[in-house]
Amino acid sequence: MSERTVGIVGLGLIGGSLARGLREAPDPPRIVASSLDSADLERAVAEGVLDSATEDAGAVAGSVDIVVYATPLDATLELLEAHRERFRSGTVLTDVVSLKVPLARKVRELGLGDRWIGGHPMAGSERSGFDAARGDLFRDASVFLVRGEGGKGAATEVSDLWTRVGGRVRWVEAEEHDRLMIRTSHLPQLVANALAATLAEAGVTPGDLGPGGRDMTRLAASAPGLWKGLVRVAGSREVESLREVIGELEHLAELLARGDVDQVETYMERTRTWREGGAWS
Amino acid sequence: MSERTVGIVGLGLIGGSLARGLREAPDPPRIVASSLDSADLERAVAEGVLDSATEDAGAVAGSVDIVVYATPLDATLELLEAHRERFRSGTVLTDVVSLKVPLARKVRELGLGDRWIGGHPMAGSERSGFDAARGDLFRDASVFLVRGEGGKGAATEVSDLWTRVGGRVRWVEAEEHDRLMIRTSHLPQLVANALAATLAEAGVTPGDLGPGGRDMTRLAASAPGLWKGLVRVAGSREVESLREVIGELEHLAELLARGDVDQVETYMERTRTWREGGAWS
Repeated sequence: MSERTVGIVGLGLIGGSLARGLREAPDPPRIVASSLDSADLERAVAEGVLDSATEDAGAVAGSVDIVVYATPLDATLELLEAHRERFRSGTVLTDVVSLKVPLARKVRELGLGDRWIGGHPMAGSERSGFDAARGDLFRDASVFLVRGEGGKGAATEVSDLWTRVGGRVRWVEAEEHDRLMIRTSHLPQLVANALAATLAEAGVTPGDLGPGGRDMTRLAASAPGLWKGLVRVAGSREVESLREVIGELEHLAELLARGDVDQVETYMERTRTWREGGAWS
Repeated sequence: MSERTVGIVGLGLIGGSLARGLREAPDPPRIVASSLDSADLERAVAEGVLDSATEDAGAVAGSVDIVVYATPLDATLELLEAHRERFRSGTVLTDVVSLKVPLARKVRELGLGDRWIGGHPMAGSERSGFDAARGDLFRDASVFLVRGEGGKGAATEVSDLWTRVGGRVRWVEAEEHDRLMIRTSHLPQLVANALAATLAEAGVTPGDLGPGGRDMTRLAASAPGLWKGLVRVAGSREVESLREVIGELEHLAELLARGDVDQVETYMERTRTWREGGAWS
């Protein structure tokens, strides 16, 4: 890969961590990036993370072998459209958006389907920005890849990119991926927000929490701007899964209200078994 | 403290971590412990964590300067009653149960109120047992202490015990403490169980989760046996706080159902501000 040039559009937590991870791995490619934050770019070049940097995302898109859009959903859709005419022949496109159906649809519409491989690294943090970027962020992380209409060469290239930074590639269909994400990512996020609001409303402060309560509200500090676009696309399916968790909470409340401590214990035993990797019964 | 003997009843995560922490701190007291697990006791003595060990909790209670009951709620209530006649004059009693009202009531009934200081270290893990014990478990952890009818000497002694292992002591009334715990500890626990059940029911496995989803279900692996006694005592108040979080989730579901993405963003902004230590608005 060392002769290839990887272009990263957006140098936040994900883009920045990818750049750092690629730089730290053996035989790194040439890495260029764009960001709206010129201070981040200067720092990344000064630290040797990037070979070159620009505030012009289009210049990156038009000059590299593989473009990684490490931008939120709405920005990624807009940039793909804006850059449509600039890609060189053979340039592979990928992204890191946590919903894949809207991306697959967009690249198809733009006639870019054969050069796009969708990506979604299951790594992150409630922190954001290049300051929070770490070269080991993707180590042992699941990285979902969606092939769609993408060619075999593109698939290999994107898979190799994530494997280099320690990710474990899982190929999925876009629809299946998005269904899974509503539950594994969106639902925990919304539950953390709701739990934080409940505690805040009751006058609890974060300093009152122990490790459990801190973990359970950590996601409440996630960047709302990143979620806005996701919520717009997935809102109605999020409602469904919210109803499911409300149903479970109501069931627990009912057991507690009638003092059925044994059933509460059984409920906890079942979730414990599941969480430790056993079967759900 | 080095001339004093600390007796720890129960060598699980909390008791074991306290023993380790005391041993690792400068000028350690003499430390004896009891456990139902003789292998744990042998190991703790062999590692030099304990000066002596026995399977007889009553022998510990009757021979030390301060007894720390590091046992679940129900066991602690039973042991206090069983040991009532065995305590030497001047022996200080404390415990680590996460509800303080039932303990305060019990020691009052038993005529032990003046020698008891209630304790609750806000530290733990979904793991349990001596295997999981760590000497630094309480470092920088809030440790709630309840004085009740306890004397000044007892208060100083128990406070010193937790300060030695890195805890930050916070004196509270038992009622205030328990109200806080329903929300900061019981509610996150029950929400984690309900979220885990929702995911499990939908066919998600823990391996499908990213760091956020893993954090949000970590508590689902907590020991049900530890919770059973707490749930029996606090069930009706837990129902109240479950209703509160259900209300917040329904509010979010409603915003999502009508596609009010801006209000969802505002909601997330508010919980983010709170979680980062800002005011709740």
